[in-house]
Amino acid sequence: MDQLQEKYSRLGVDSAPGQEDLQEKIELDIRGEALPGTKVDFSHGDVNAHIPTPGALDVFIDGYKEGANQAYTEYRGQKAIREIVAEKLSAFTGSPINAGTEIIVTPGTQCALFLAMGALVGRGDKVAIVEPDYFANRKLAEFFDGDIVPIQMHYVNAPHGTAGIDLTQLEEAFKNGVKLFLFSNPNNPTGVIYSKEEIATIASLAKKYNVSLIVDELYSRQIFDNRPYTHLRAQKEIPESMVTILGPSKTESLSGFRLGVAFGSKYIIDRMEKLQAIVSLRAAGYCQAVLKTWFNEPEGFMAARIKEHQDIRDSILALLKTVPGTSARPTEGGSYLFVELPELTVSISDFVKIVRKLTNTTVTTGTEFGPQFTNHFRINFSQNKDDALDAIKRLLTVMERYRK
Amino acid sequence: MDQLQEKYSRLGVDSAPGQEDLQEKIELDIRGEALPGTKVDFSHGDVNAHIPTPGALDVFIDGYKEGANQAYTEYRGQKAIREIVAEKLSAFTGSPINAGTEIIVTPGTQCALFLAMGALVGRGDKVAIVEPDYFANRKLAEFFDGDIVPIQMHYVNAPHGTAGIDLTQLEEAFKNGVKLFLFSNPNNPTGVIYSKEEIATIASLAKKYNVSLIVDELYSRQIFDNRPYTHLRAQKEIPESMVTILGPSKTESLSGFRLGVAFGSKYIIDRMEKLQAIVSLRAAGYCQAVLKTWFNEPEGFMAARIKEHQDIRDSILALLKTVPGTSARPTEGGSYLFVELPELTVSISDFVKIVRKLTNTTVTTGTEFGPQFTNHFRINFSQNKDDALDAIKRLLTVMERYRK
Repeated sequence: MDQLQEKYSRLGVDSAPGQEDLQEKIELDIRGEALPGTKVDFSHGDVNAHIPTPGALDVFIDGYKEGANQAYTEYRGQKAIREIVAEKLSAFTGSPINAGTEIIVTPGTQCALFLAMGALVGRGDKVAIVEPDYFANRKLAEFFDGDIVPIQMHYVNAPHGTAGIDLTQLEEAFKNGVKLFLFSNPNNPTGVIYSKEEIATIASLAKKYNVSLIVDELYSRQIFDNRPYTHLRAQKEIPESMVTILGPSKTESLSGFRLGVAFGSKYIIDRMEKLQAIVSLRAAGYCQAVLKTWFNEPEGFMAARIKEHQDIRDSILALLKTVPGTSARPTEGGSYLFVELPELTVSISDFVKIVRKLTNTTVTTGTEFGPQFTNHFRINFSQNKDDALDAIKRLLTVMERYRK
Repeated sequence: MDQLQEKYSRLGVDSAPGQEDLQEKIELDIRGEALPGTKVDFSHGDVNAHIPTPGALDVFIDGYKEGANQAYTEYRGQKAIREIVAEKLSAFTGSPINAGTEIIVTPGTQCALFLAMGALVGRGDKVAIVEPDYFANRKLAEFFDGDIVPIQMHYVNAPHGTAGIDLTQLEEAFKNGVKLFLFSNPNNPTGVIYSKEEIATIASLAKKYNVSLIVDELYSRQIFDNRPYTHLRAQKEIPESMVTILGPSKTESLSGFRLGVAFGSKYIIDRMEKLQAIVSLRAAGYCQAVLKTWFNEPEGFMAARIKEHQDIRDSILALLKTVPGTSARPTEGGSYLFVELPELTVSISDFVKIVRKLTNTTVTTGTEFGPQFTNHFRINFSQNKDDALDAIKRLLTVMERYRK
């Protein structure tokens, strides 16, 4: 196998959310009848149930009508839009952003992550990655030939108000030459939020050991139960090399426009733009206009959306409580629940495929988020509430057929 | 300098089209007064002068209204859209495409190029690249740590009806272990078209020496003077590993939607999708809908557009004829002219900056397309005709001030 064959054999997408139709047919241990019900795809949010920010389409159309000026922007995004967004994000994160030099608009936060990793990970560089964390993080580190150093997040039994990241292990990793630490906050897939102390410690350790930081704050606008949320970049002690990633694709349901931003150290943004120039030039010009609606939603829109999602979360958690052996730490931010199941007689990978076949319900395999999560699956509960509850009931009914 | 610093120092964007505002201020040898006139940016086409395909916005809006199904597609693009596009492209290129396995929709043709290069170039692989050719080709090969093997295209004195690629040099390169040959047809920046014999020879040499091929046919719908155009993939003898790239961003003026496609060998498309999954997930979902207008333009639209561009080309060429020492091979396909100037007393890089300052006219430095093009600049003449002619006149007037 040559180097590329090997690289791409590791870079699987068959179990990635939304790719299930591409899976090769395999023999499954099917037990019992199918349970009919409305199809629910928990691999991502449902923008029909939670519609895009009102006015987004109108702003897109205005952008289209603006013509050449909006179609061809600088690679880092249109200057006027960077200025609007930088101001909003400075206020949101509590730390200033220079619109000229410290922010880039990207085709989705996935691309922001890709560019940031490309800017910071060289061959053989040690990259610290949390387990569990967003499944693409490990794939990105591998793609850029980094060496992954896993950091455990003991989220289940964490002290109250903390995410449970193992800070001793993190410092040890930093001491041993880690160059970059990448993590999401709120965490994907568990929805836990890092405490103020955890964030401050990560920032000061990174400064002390000269480690670069990438923090993915994609879900930081959807915080439940009025919890405090701490932005890494607003800390007193921060490293020189740091970038924050955010976008309007989740709570705002604007995923269909593919928009993200990264903001932080000038030299990282410069590299990201150089890379963007050969990756895809820019975020779709007309789509960039939609960022004008961001942090500018109609009065009460975000609060109502958060309330709706908190309610769906609570209903699903109440349902899980009735089934012995299942559990999930209540989501603190974002739309994910990382559900632990009792021991099953089939692998989690097969179980997910069986559930899809028998209940028309798609969930994401736990092992995508770390090799040890062999009894777990992730759901994005940004769905129609009744359909979601019914789908989880069907899933749990089928689960009983495989309980060890 | 560490490996990343070195990599990014080579990956410049300051002289790239559309990035001129980011250039650091430098001392220029300014001679004479500024020549006022309408600003013309020849670094890309003007979608205000040549508007997007009629109906594109309506189809986008329909896509938006379709909701979740259009917002979240498979990474390789929505199945229904792949089917429509595969059928059109099969007919256009004269060779069948399997919509399920042999085509991927990407955020722009730039991303198609990036993904194809990422799928095919490993560390130390020899990559043959034409000089002159699209400036990003070399940058992509370098980014993926390939070794560039330049192939000369003697386009100025080429035999009638040929592009002038040095096929002896190409075979020698293939013999010496080149793994991949990447080229654009029509060529960017010269606008020349490869002859049937040139294309057939490239294909059979690639088959003989087991070389992969990437052909960028971005401008293949805009052919002038009813010339014959030969699609590489329709040749009798072709290599097993081959991909063609095309998109609606040029002649169709749909660049603001960022859409491209790549089609060819299943294993390349599979790798491209795996890479797309971590690069940007997918082309913006709502934008993908716009591909329904592609190869489905209103009766006469494409013919009229080609005629308009041929007329602009002819007017610019007539103007160049009046200025001794300037020349350009007439464009055969696409909207580019690669203009050669007489010897100047300043570098081409400085000249381009001086012209921008004195005449409000942006052109692209010849050395972006190959190091030897030190007296050349490229223009995209998809502009308002009168404005374009006036801008070229101003540029040539300023040029006289620097003639050696």
